[in-house]
Amino acid sequence: MDLQALLDDLARESAPFAAQGRVADYIPALAAVDPSRFGIALATMDGQVLGSGVWRAPFSVQSVSKAFALALVLARDGEALWRRVGREPSGNPFNSLVQLEYEKGIPRNPFINAGALVLVDRLLSLTGDSVGALRAFLREESGNAAVDVDAEVATSEAAHGHRNAALAHFMASCGNLENPVEAVLDHYFRQCSLAMSCGDLARAGLFLANHGLRADGSRLLTRSEAKRINAVMLTCGTYDAAGDFAYRVGLPGKSGVGGGILAVLPERGVLCVWSPALDAHGNSVAGVEALDRFTTRTGWSVF
Amino acid sequence: MDLQALLDDLARESAPFAAQGRVADYIPALAAVDPSRFGIALATMDGQVLGSGVWRAPFSVQSVSKAFALALVLARDGEALWRRVGREPSGNPFNSLVQLEYEKGIPRNPFINAGALVLVDRLLSLTGDSVGALRAFLREESGNAAVDVDAEVATSEAAHGHRNAALAHFMASCGNLENPVEAVLDHYFRQCSLAMSCGDLARAGLFLANHGLRADGSRLLTRSEAKRINAVMLTCGTYDAAGDFAYRVGLPGKSGVGGGILAVLPERGVLCVWSPALDAHGNSVAGVEALDRFTTRTGWSVF
Amino acid sequence: MDLQALLDDLARESAPFAAQGRVADYIPALAAVDPSRFGIALATMDGQVLGSGVWRAPFSVQSVSKAFALALVLARDGEALWRRVGREPSGNPFNSLVQLEYEKGIPRNPFINAGALVLVDRLLSLTGDSVGALRAFLREESGNAAVDVDAEVATSEAAHGHRNAALAHFMASCGNLENPVEAVLDHYFRQCSLAMSCGDLARAGLFLANHGLRADGSRLLTRSEAKRINAVMLTCGTYDAAGDFAYRVGLPGKSGVGGGILAVLPERGVLCVWSPALDAHGNSVAGVEALDRFTTRTGWSVF
Amino acid sequence: MDLQALLDDLARESAPFAAQGRVADYIPALAAVDPSRFGIALATMDGQVLGSGVWRAPFSVQSVSKAFALALVLARDGEALWRRVGREPSGNPFNSLVQLEYEKGIPRNPFINAGALVLVDRLLSLTGDSVGALRAFLREESGNAAVDVDAEVATSEAAHGHRNAALAHFMASCGNLENPVEAVLDHYFRQCSLAMSCGDLARAGLFLANHGLRADGSRLLTRSEAKRINAVMLTCGTYDAAGDFAYRVGLPGKSGVGGGILAVLPERGVLCVWSPALDAHGNSVAGVEALDRFTTRTGWSVF
Repeated sequence: MDLQALLDDLARESAPFAAQGRVADYIPALAAVDPSRFGIALATMDGQVLGSGVWRAPFSVQSVSKAFALALVLARDGEALWRRVGREPSGNPFNSLVQLEYEKGIPRNPFINAGALVLVDRLLSLTGDSVGALRAFLREESGNAAVDVDAEVATSEAAHGHRNAALAHFMASCGNLENPVEAVLDHYFRQCSLAMSCGDLARAGLFLANHGLRADGSRLLTRSEAKRINAVMLTCGTYDAAGDFAYRVGLPGKSGVGGGILAVLPERGVLCVWSPALDAHGNSVAGVEALDRFTTRTGWSVF
Repeated sequence: MDLQALLDDLARESAPFAAQGRVADYIPALAAVDPSRFGIALATMDGQVLGSGVWRAPFSVQSVSKAFALALVLARDGEALWRRVGREPSGNPFNSLVQLEYEKGIPRNPFINAGALVLVDRLLSLTGDSVGALRAFLREESGNAAVDVDAEVATSEAAHGHRNAALAHFMASCGNLENPVEAVLDHYFRQCSLAMSCGDLARAGLFLANHGLRADGSRLLTRSEAKRINAVMLTCGTYDAAGDFAYRVGLPGKSGVGGGILAVLPERGVLCVWSPALDAHGNSVAGVEALDRFTTRTGWSVF
Repeated sequence: MDLQALLDDLARESAPFAAQGRVADYIPALAAVDPSRFGIALATMDGQVLGSGVWRAPFSVQSVSKAFALALVLARDGEALWRRVGREPSGNPFNSLVQLEYEKGIPRNPFINAGALVLVDRLLSLTGDSVGALRAFLREESGNAAVDVDAEVATSEAAHGHRNAALAHFMASCGNLENPVEAVLDHYFRQCSLAMSCGDLARAGLFLANHGLRADGSRLLTRSEAKRINAVMLTCGTYDAAGDFAYRVGLPGKSGVGGGILAVLPERGVLCVWSPALDAHGNSVAGVEALDRFTTRTGWSVF
Repeated sequence: MDLQALLDDLARESAPFAAQGRVADYIPALAAVDPSRFGIALATMDGQVLGSGVWRAPFSVQSVSKAFALALVLARDGEALWRRVGREPSGNPFNSLVQLEYEKGIPRNPFINAGALVLVDRLLSLTGDSVGALRAFLREESGNAAVDVDAEVATSEAAHGHRNAALAHFMASCGNLENPVEAVLDHYFRQCSLAMSCGDLARAGLFLANHGLRADGSRLLTRSEAKRINAVMLTCGTYDAAGDFAYRVGLPGKSGVGGGILAVLPERGVLCVWSPALDAHGNSVAGVEALDRFTTRTGWSVF
């Protein structure tokens, strides 16, 4: 299979679907992104990275970062993590307070905002610098020492972060935060504001396709833990459209409102696609389209 | 009718019901209150104030303050107030985020915590000092210039206020707060921490029985507005037990977790009862009992 | 006060408000009613009945019947009734399954459809003929032996009754029905299809203003029970707009989707108004308007 | 790998976990099943069927039948099916009315009871005999012409079917049923009461592992459709524990309250396990345990 030709085809065919979506506009820094940008990259197990479109351009990773935060916490805490956060699909929009109240402050999974705040809180306790630990990991795995927080985006997130503050205060009222609300929110907003390219993200995610082994051959996760993160991504990784994503794409994936989606091809590699225009569920329209076409043509879904 | 004898009877008969309840313990300052304290006072239209038990002892008014805050805002904003808060019973526990999210940041009524935060926010905009304006009003109406905030209680409220912070941040995210979250919370916690006696409160509430006329004869509210606050108190004034309170007592009433309840006898006067032990809904057990007995014996329910 | 002149004024002023509403159209038999019809009647304690508009024309009483069913069951079962149904406002639209599931099959109050089904079930157990017992009572109190079920409406209700069937089956699954679902539904649909005029209903409801005494002077309810039904009407009688109704009108009231509203003036009499066009909550637009004007002009609200 | 030895090991090791669960007792016919029964069977792509324990004993398939019903409807209706039922995880217990009301009568996925009723309704419209069409299919694929409905179980289901009747009536009220409620319920209860062994089910499900090809080589589903049913099974197949099942087992699976679980190994085969004692979510305790051990030892999860 000529993978480079395939990526080029997907970029050409999928990019126009962006016209059906809308760029996230809850903060000015995201609203200003050009909706016609499209990038796709594939990192394979043998270390190769192919790409098409603007696959080397950094964008705001937003919730894609949560997959990496989960890996870092699971690597340290193991199964104990699940006492503070569930791993069931939410069946509700991604920032819902309703479910959090119903579940008495235990977020339903680590990828809804409340759950991601718990990951940040825990990584902060474990490392003393949650976003710093994550950035160091991403730099090493991607091989790009320039990976960093976009300060303008982080400031903008904080200025529009009342809903996340509500989630954090509510969990604090339930006793499910270890650190001060303000510190957790600060690290969370900065984590979401990390800027990376499709190529960076695809490379950084390879440990998920490679049974938990990092780029340098050391082990981050057991084989079983890596598999389990993929399971959580498949069932919970794309907000309230996880069922639809599994149905159409059939791969573990994690999306962000910056328009990026990371998808894992177990034992083959990692795909990352970026197109800023989102559908009603907050997933990149052209990104999902490209992944759908990819698995249809290659047959490389997990099912 | 010998009202003094009646109040003495009610005090003697009702006080023991406190044994069926529990003192609020979410903050140490409230948890320390002696559960056997019981006071009841009746202020009548002709200026008389009768009482029994510890009716001159100040206690933490907590949510009873919300009835007065509603009056002050309605007097200034009139019907425009209802664009920012509803007036329907909540059908849910009093600090529920669920309903607030479902209603997109418009609290269901002014007496649930979220609605009271909107009142504080509005009174802050209107006066520049929400708790100050309320305190001045209560001092004048009660004739007690010593009415003030209990600073220890206010500090304790703020230290345990994550759930109210969650409500405030959520409303801010919906665009339903005019002032900074921190300022609104500060005034709210101090308002709840006002300390007043049964006698103070009964006197201060007389305008609600007197068609909106204040102690000095000036008009705070129109006849219709005074009637309408009573309606909101009857349908929404006792948390998720408003139906039960209407059924048993049959008077407009506003309760607080400090154990106080203010009840309005239209065109007759105002009753205030205090007993710190609460039922599962957050209302004073002995207080509701005393009011139930009062209306049964006098026939002075509104129905 | 010239009450006849007042009723005439209210009819003339309020009837045009029907243009702001919509006639119930879930069954053809109701959809066919002329929306311009308007009637209002006042029955006073001394036996007088005044009216204006088409106050002698029968209409479909629908949920207004629930106030009478509650009285008949409470008269027989007393407080034991409240083990099977609550008395709190619902905080949700009137046919909601959500709340019923949350409350494990115990309807929140006797006036939402689920609660009314429990009343029918209980009256069926107590009398062997629920709708028959209710009809006999209404004939006696109204003095109109022609009060009867409109068979066409009843058939139409049954044919469009899937949602009520869902409620009944759900309660049966929770063990909160004593009779077969089909029998309960049959009596319920026929009860809702009773046809009565404003004059009939006002006369029939007088026991609620008269401390529980029937037209013949015999006692149906204790003084306390009559008061308590009024309390339930005020807090729960007008679907999800009970707070608004209390705020504007300030009287215990029970509405129906046929466009009728029964309102109790304790110790004075009973008002009944009919205008078929409904607001978004299912209450008669012109009917609420007329009641609002009535209490504003007379000052006869309970507050 | 010696698969027969593996199955024997799993049977021996997993069967004791049944002690942690409880046999379904909502109908007497299920409550009477011996909780110590355990069977496991593996059908492979080359036509081989291995088993251990009581893998040839028929049991009540219950909701496992829904995977087959989905296949038959999807084969006929294609994507049009999704206008009447969603494909997102439910995030709520499997028979919830709450979500159905929130979604206005469109069940969230085809495996919750409401969604399965829609499948039955549609298959009834398409074939004139829903349960007959399904039985014929299962007989052909399993090669066992004795596969049939257990009439005693079906009668028992119908007698305790109020909750399913509530769901069906509610959907009828929303216009989402094509056939009479009674007919849909009758076919549904009989479908759930089909009795099959682990060996029967494993063989019958092979088309899901074999890209949609039936036992006789004919095509039931396109490659893409087969993949998509597996995706729906993984995200929605095990009630409110789909995330946990994906996490532990990592295979598409469909469980039933009879204690059976069908799991698909794409391109390899189908596993079926049976142990009647259920966990709190309604899934077989020993069954999930056996599948967890199977994928851990073989590495044959999809992730």
